[in-house]
Amino acid sequence: MKPFEKLVPRLEAIKLINENINPINRVENIPLIEGVGRVLAEDVIADFNVPPFDRSSMDGYAVKAEDTIDANESKPVKLKQIGIYYAGENKEILIEKGQCIEISTGSPIPNGANAVVMVEYTKKIGDFIEIYRKTKQGDNIAPEGEDIKKNEVVLKVGEFLTPGKLGALAAIGKTTLRVFEKPLIGIYSTGTEIVEPGVPLKNSQIYDINSYTINAIVESNGCLPIKKGIILDEVTILANSVLETKNFDLTVFSGGSSVGSKDLLSDIVENYGKIHFHGLQVKPGKPTLFGEIENRPIFGMPGYPTSCLNNSYVFLIPALRKLAHLPPKEDRVVKARLAKSIRSDGGREQFFTVKLNGDTAMPVFKQSGDITSIANADGYFVIPIGVYSVKEDTEVEVILFNH
Amino acid sequence: MKPFEKLVPRLEAIKLINENINPINRVENIPLIEGVGRVLAEDVIADFNVPPFDRSSMDGYAVKAEDTIDANESKPVKLKQIGIYYAGENKEILIEKGQCIEISTGSPIPNGANAVVMVEYTKKIGDFIEIYRKTKQGDNIAPEGEDIKKNEVVLKVGEFLTPGKLGALAAIGKTTLRVFEKPLIGIYSTGTEIVEPGVPLKNSQIYDINSYTINAIVESNGCLPIKKGIILDEVTILANSVLETKNFDLTVFSGGSSVGSKDLLSDIVENYGKIHFHGLQVKPGKPTLFGEIENRPIFGMPGYPTSCLNNSYVFLIPALRKLAHLPPKEDRVVKARLAKSIRSDGGREQFFTVKLNGDTAMPVFKQSGDITSIANADGYFVIPIGVYSVKEDTEVEVILFNH
Repeated sequence: MKPFEKLVPRLEAIKLINENINPINRVENIPLIEGVGRVLAEDVIADFNVPPFDRSSMDGYAVKAEDTIDANESKPVKLKQIGIYYAGENKEILIEKGQCIEISTGSPIPNGANAVVMVEYTKKIGDFIEIYRKTKQGDNIAPEGEDIKKNEVVLKVGEFLTPGKLGALAAIGKTTLRVFEKPLIGIYSTGTEIVEPGVPLKNSQIYDINSYTINAIVESNGCLPIKKGIILDEVTILANSVLETKNFDLTVFSGGSSVGSKDLLSDIVENYGKIHFHGLQVKPGKPTLFGEIENRPIFGMPGYPTSCLNNSYVFLIPALRKLAHLPPKEDRVVKARLAKSIRSDGGREQFFTVKLNGDTAMPVFKQSGDITSIANADGYFVIPIGVYSVKEDTEVEVILFNH
Repeated sequence: MKPFEKLVPRLEAIKLINENINPINRVENIPLIEGVGRVLAEDVIADFNVPPFDRSSMDGYAVKAEDTIDANESKPVKLKQIGIYYAGENKEILIEKGQCIEISTGSPIPNGANAVVMVEYTKKIGDFIEIYRKTKQGDNIAPEGEDIKKNEVVLKVGEFLTPGKLGALAAIGKTTLRVFEKPLIGIYSTGTEIVEPGVPLKNSQIYDINSYTINAIVESNGCLPIKKGIILDEVTILANSVLETKNFDLTVFSGGSSVGSKDLLSDIVENYGKIHFHGLQVKPGKPTLFGEIENRPIFGMPGYPTSCLNNSYVFLIPALRKLAHLPPKEDRVVKARLAKSIRSDGGREQFFTVKLNGDTAMPVFKQSGDITSIANADGYFVIPIGVYSVKEDTEVEVILFNH
């Protein structure tokens, strides 16, 4: 059994991950309707002005502004109504001096008109409309191209597609989007004691947890999980799997990266590729490996479910999001008071999981081997290296597990 | 054209929405692997203890603690190694006084042993192991049931399934989850001027934007969008569509809820069902309707794309999440300084969209009819009723559009 040579601090590990992960290049075409959460792989340019014509931004009357110069509350101007323009209609009526046309929001402005009077400032009397407020040229008109100009770059490559940005793409009539593919993430659980949920447990066996937690993390961060299942901690089997990693944009192994005698992953990655770090100065999650084989990144996560999942939040998510061209996940942090005193390791930065109850943080961390140490938590706070205990009622900053 | 009778303030509108939306009852069974983001529709109880046996939480040697009482750094105790326990193996070796067994993390504790000495505090000399540190009973043993106890309710009905909670379900061997169905949301765009992206535009026509922005909002909030497309603003067509709303858990119309002469939705909802509010004291988004027909909620959103989408963030998302049993979306708020002075309506609460540039908030709001007023924004700040302008360099709280 070999000890870790040097434990890498969290920020250094994140820097190494960031330096050694490249966003994927593969692109695909998808329908506009499926675009939410995807990332544009091309600049999108408008072929025409939006709106494509001067249009009314109010319900009211299209007028010549100069006809309304003398209008006010006590002395309205009277204009002759010569027609109605509904939105979507394609009429060609010319307004002359002294005339107006009833117009609804979104309707093209009739020829000859240069302003719209809101219906609230008018009164209809037979064929005539009394105008109670002076307008000036352009009032209540959205001019052609106000929203988006022809030949404008509407969205650039790398843009994360929110509902609003999809709206802008709809506005310019895009039906197909060129986006980056979702990165393929291979997921393996290793260990002779691990079996698939559903299979009856024999003595000494436990169910695979990590494939499921990692699968969920991958899916929630813009990547496509490929669950490869459980493989034995045997050298030839593991070596074959490690070489299969070329089929994925990133591969996550869990178990098999600690220093136990059956922990072979690091030897194999070292042999066929390169290790960027092995061993983190964090708790839980010390026995974590990050490396690559043929430029395909590999994570070796601890077998302990809470270690594995906590590390997935802290280290894997940034990797996945960079691969997928996604913006970094922003932490949501709330302040709370610790419900009871706790002890820490002191030698490593500890992620201490808590459940929030109002502004009280209840410790829920039991052991790294217990999935309930994280399943029952709303988030965690960080206990720095060198701190050996945190007293009851201390204010802590809880980083929430993002949903 | 009829004016709004009374404009409803935002908080009152949200209260009305909350009072008149009930979470759906329909449930379905899904595989564990598809569980992330879903909501449990039943209590889940553990059929067995997790771990199912006392296991070692360290690599080291299983011992009788009483054999190590005199051990210390300078005077080790020597124990005879009588075997090896790997994780997943099912051996039956009994430890007698003076004996030990090499054991790896996760392995069942051999009969007769009651503690594990970490490998770091041992030295192997032939068949004998020198122990350099005293242990006490239970050291480095995770006892049966420490994580989850048999017959314990692991997760309750209504629980939102995070990666950690899915891990707990895997730990107890669940393969199928009973969850609430995703609510079906019908989406209609109304208006004679609106056409589907991809169809060539005639004069006076524009592309449908709202179906796409609402579709994205629905999909990102745990519901299933059913895009019904564009319907004409004609009374019989609209009435038929409104009656079709019984096929959906909630229906969103956009366009057709303002007070223009062709705006018929409110008449029809009033005729066949009930209006909870019509007209909001907000900008953009005043002409918004919320009602129901046969207990199926209906939103009538403004036709203007930014009004429609802003309202979807503020009013529709809470409705969707309540329908779907999802926890409320928590706002992410950042402070920023306004890059230039702006004016507000004053009579209505205004949601003013901005783009963030460091700690500067650049106004991007143009007109409610312009999708870029929101597509180019990172979030918005709220200008209260009665405030008519906000000066350059004022600190504002920007509510981010959640991704």
